[in-house]
Amino acid sequence: MGLRSFVDVAPDSHFPLENLPYGVFRPSSSSSASGAGGDASPPPPRPGVAIGDFVLDLSVISGAGLFDGPILKNSPCFLQTSLNMFVGMGRPAWKEARLTLQRLLSADEPTLRDNTSLREKCLLKMTEVEMLLPTVVGDYTDFYCSVHHAKNCGTIFRGPENAIPRNWFYLPVAYHGRASSIVISGTDIIRPRGQGYPMGNSPPYFGPTQKLDFELEMAAIVGPGNELGRPINVNEAADHIFGLVLMNDWSARDIQAWECVPLGPFLGKSFSTTISPWVVTLDALEPFACDAPVQDPQPLAYLVESKHINYDISLEVGIKPAEHEHPAIVTRSNFKNLYWTLTQQLAHHTVNGCNMRPGDLLGTGTLSGPEPESFGCLLELTWNGQKSLSLNGSDHKFLEDGDEVIFRACCKGKDYNVGFGSCTGKVLPALP
Amino acid sequence: MGLRSFVDVAPDSHFPLENLPYGVFRPSSSSSASGAGGDASPPPPRPGVAIGDFVLDLSVISGAGLFDGPILKNSPCFLQTSLNMFVGMGRPAWKEARLTLQRLLSADEPTLRDNTSLREKCLLKMTEVEMLLPTVVGDYTDFYCSVHHAKNCGTIFRGPENAIPRNWFYLPVAYHGRASSIVISGTDIIRPRGQGYPMGNSPPYFGPTQKLDFELEMAAIVGPGNELGRPINVNEAADHIFGLVLMNDWSARDIQAWECVPLGPFLGKSFSTTISPWVVTLDALEPFACDAPVQDPQPLAYLVESKHINYDISLEVGIKPAEHEHPAIVTRSNFKNLYWTLTQQLAHHTVNGCNMRPGDLLGTGTLSGPEPESFGCLLELTWNGQKSLSLNGSDHKFLEDGDEVIFRACCKGKDYNVGFGSCTGKVLPALP
Repeated sequence: MGLRSFVDVAPDSHFPLENLPYGVFRPSSSSSASGAGGDASPPPPRPGVAIGDFVLDLSVISGAGLFDGPILKNSPCFLQTSLNMFVGMGRPAWKEARLTLQRLLSADEPTLRDNTSLREKCLLKMTEVEMLLPTVVGDYTDFYCSVHHAKNCGTIFRGPENAIPRNWFYLPVAYHGRASSIVISGTDIIRPRGQGYPMGNSPPYFGPTQKLDFELEMAAIVGPGNELGRPINVNEAADHIFGLVLMNDWSARDIQAWECVPLGPFLGKSFSTTISPWVVTLDALEPFACDAPVQDPQPLAYLVESKHINYDISLEVGIKPAEHEHPAIVTRSNFKNLYWTLTQQLAHHTVNGCNMRPGDLLGTGTLSGPEPESFGCLLELTWNGQKSLSLNGSDHKFLEDGDEVIFRACCKGKDYNVGFGSCTGKVLPALP
Repeated sequence: MGLRSFVDVAPDSHFPLENLPYGVFRPSSSSSASGAGGDASPPPPRPGVAIGDFVLDLSVISGAGLFDGPILKNSPCFLQTSLNMFVGMGRPAWKEARLTLQRLLSADEPTLRDNTSLREKCLLKMTEVEMLLPTVVGDYTDFYCSVHHAKNCGTIFRGPENAIPRNWFYLPVAYHGRASSIVISGTDIIRPRGQGYPMGNSPPYFGPTQKLDFELEMAAIVGPGNELGRPINVNEAADHIFGLVLMNDWSARDIQAWECVPLGPFLGKSFSTTISPWVVTLDALEPFACDAPVQDPQPLAYLVESKHINYDISLEVGIKPAEHEHPAIVTRSNFKNLYWTLTQQLAHHTVNGCNMRPGDLLGTGTLSGPEPESFGCLLELTWNGQKSLSLNGSDHKFLEDGDEVIFRACCKGKDYNVGFGSCTGKVLPALP
């Protein structure tokens, strides 16, 4: 039997007392916290945690003096417009906040439960808030850490003999991504225009991408950073990771294929990257830890870790074409398909001295599983458009205008879930 | 005969009244503006312009009400700790500031010249200030736009037949760089550690890079940005570029070569990128505009511009080994070697809808010229270490611990220079 809150939490909710993921929100104009003035400026963003169908406003909890532990008492970390300050404070602060919030929200604790006016001020319906990016992302890095994805992409583009380059088994391959175009779940995605491979001796194609794709990823939010020149040890890396979100690394395959030699993906990626609003902490994920894949060849010493773990997180992707009422599920995968763990990624990223800052985002790369039904993008699912995918009767090779892509992720416990909610985006037509 | 200031400006100074480059500085503790208290916190960073051997403190000029034009009057843009707000205001604000400052600093204008106390407060010796990064860089992009550099690198790594991939002549190739490790000129560079190519069937090399290199680049600082999904037209792109700095894109060639398949450079670059402190505006560079190279094949329509220009900026690189007193000049090149112009770079970068933010940094790529004496990095100068370079008698293939690398850039007019000062960094040994 799970923990019990005085807030109603449905049995299949992603957000029971065991989860308490963090996000940043703004009360929508109709909700009580935003005031009634017609020309009032919108209320400022503030941190919150999800509980059932509600958001707990941490700025109100903090203002009421209810964070009374030694680290968070008098800290302004929950009076900020982003989570950067809080995530930068590190695990002791995260543990203290979790304990305080689990106590305040528990069914046995009267402080909030019996204080109607405070409760109404701090507990808002999820439907009445607008979710924003949880952190200001200084830098965003995208890894390439599912062996199944690497093998499929390599086979499609270079043939089965050279599918996975030799370096892949020695280092978590990654590239720097674009931070400015990271958007929150629910943001529409404008189909990008760009250049694609020329036919024969003609000039390149230019126009709306004809191969718009999703990529099913998760991403780590960095907690405390490191000084430039001071690498993070792989066995200490977990203390630098606050939690995880879902991420859709939208990709324009034709733009990417033409531009990427010799410096890698650029405009095929930088038009938008969507993340889910709720950051699920590693503390909440701990009960779902599982062994990470055995690595052969043996990693170099700086990547050998005493605790080599992944998390058992079920992932699914649905696509809802414009004229359909319901999404069709196109893939089911799992986070545990990651070959290089989050901690190995972080240790590798900093081994050259590169500095992380609180709030930085580390994407895992597409989380494809071994079976065709678990491939993490349309490039793999349709084998670069060579075959179609039926979405409740509608044939698709790549994404079409009006398609809504919906990611969901959840850890399923015996008595409760620890979920991520969803990460969604709808494709709008290209500019004329 | 150039413009005359009441501030002494030596004939060979990089910073006459025609230049007025912007930077951000902090008065050092010994200077008058910082106060005398032993435990006082350091004075906050503030914007300044360079004039001769002095820095004009714009926060003082602004505080004294001397920005009296319609845009800058009462604007807090010079009371910030970075130039982001000012560069985001756009060309009308830049023009107004330039006019006001050229007037205030001219020999004929008494306002500052004859006000000793104000003059002493706002004019600080360059030797008595600490220069900081001019903007908070949200995203940093590095292009690859010298055809000579592309040809040399391609020949070294892929042979002369496949030196330049076909896409290069249709689009300004680029990759996303790391913003967190951008440092200001003068910052020491710790030799990075990382993996390099394995010998035969052994595991990869791991240790300090054995091929540490500089890359001679310049970088544009973005002014007003664009909304996500709304590309910048190539003929309007100049209004989105505030100015230029020198940039050393330090590179670890062995790390880069092993890691870069298939997603491009990562840890071979992200350990440090140095920029010069003074942003020279496009307005100051205007007299040095020159035709950019004729492009064949003809670019696609979105890259065809009515004004296809570069700037005639002489560049040189010196290396000073630890035991030497003077640097040896290892290359002399010119900014006008750029094949894709700054405006084409920006138009291409946003054609997919990618959004720029004020203060973003766009590196040109290594600015190699056609002759061997004008190659822009040691990879090219020593042909990947196949030959040595003599630095006043000391043989070098790549950078050694203790080497100081010094970039300088200058536009030479008839009566004056518009210069960039220098961009320097010294190599420290790798961590044990």
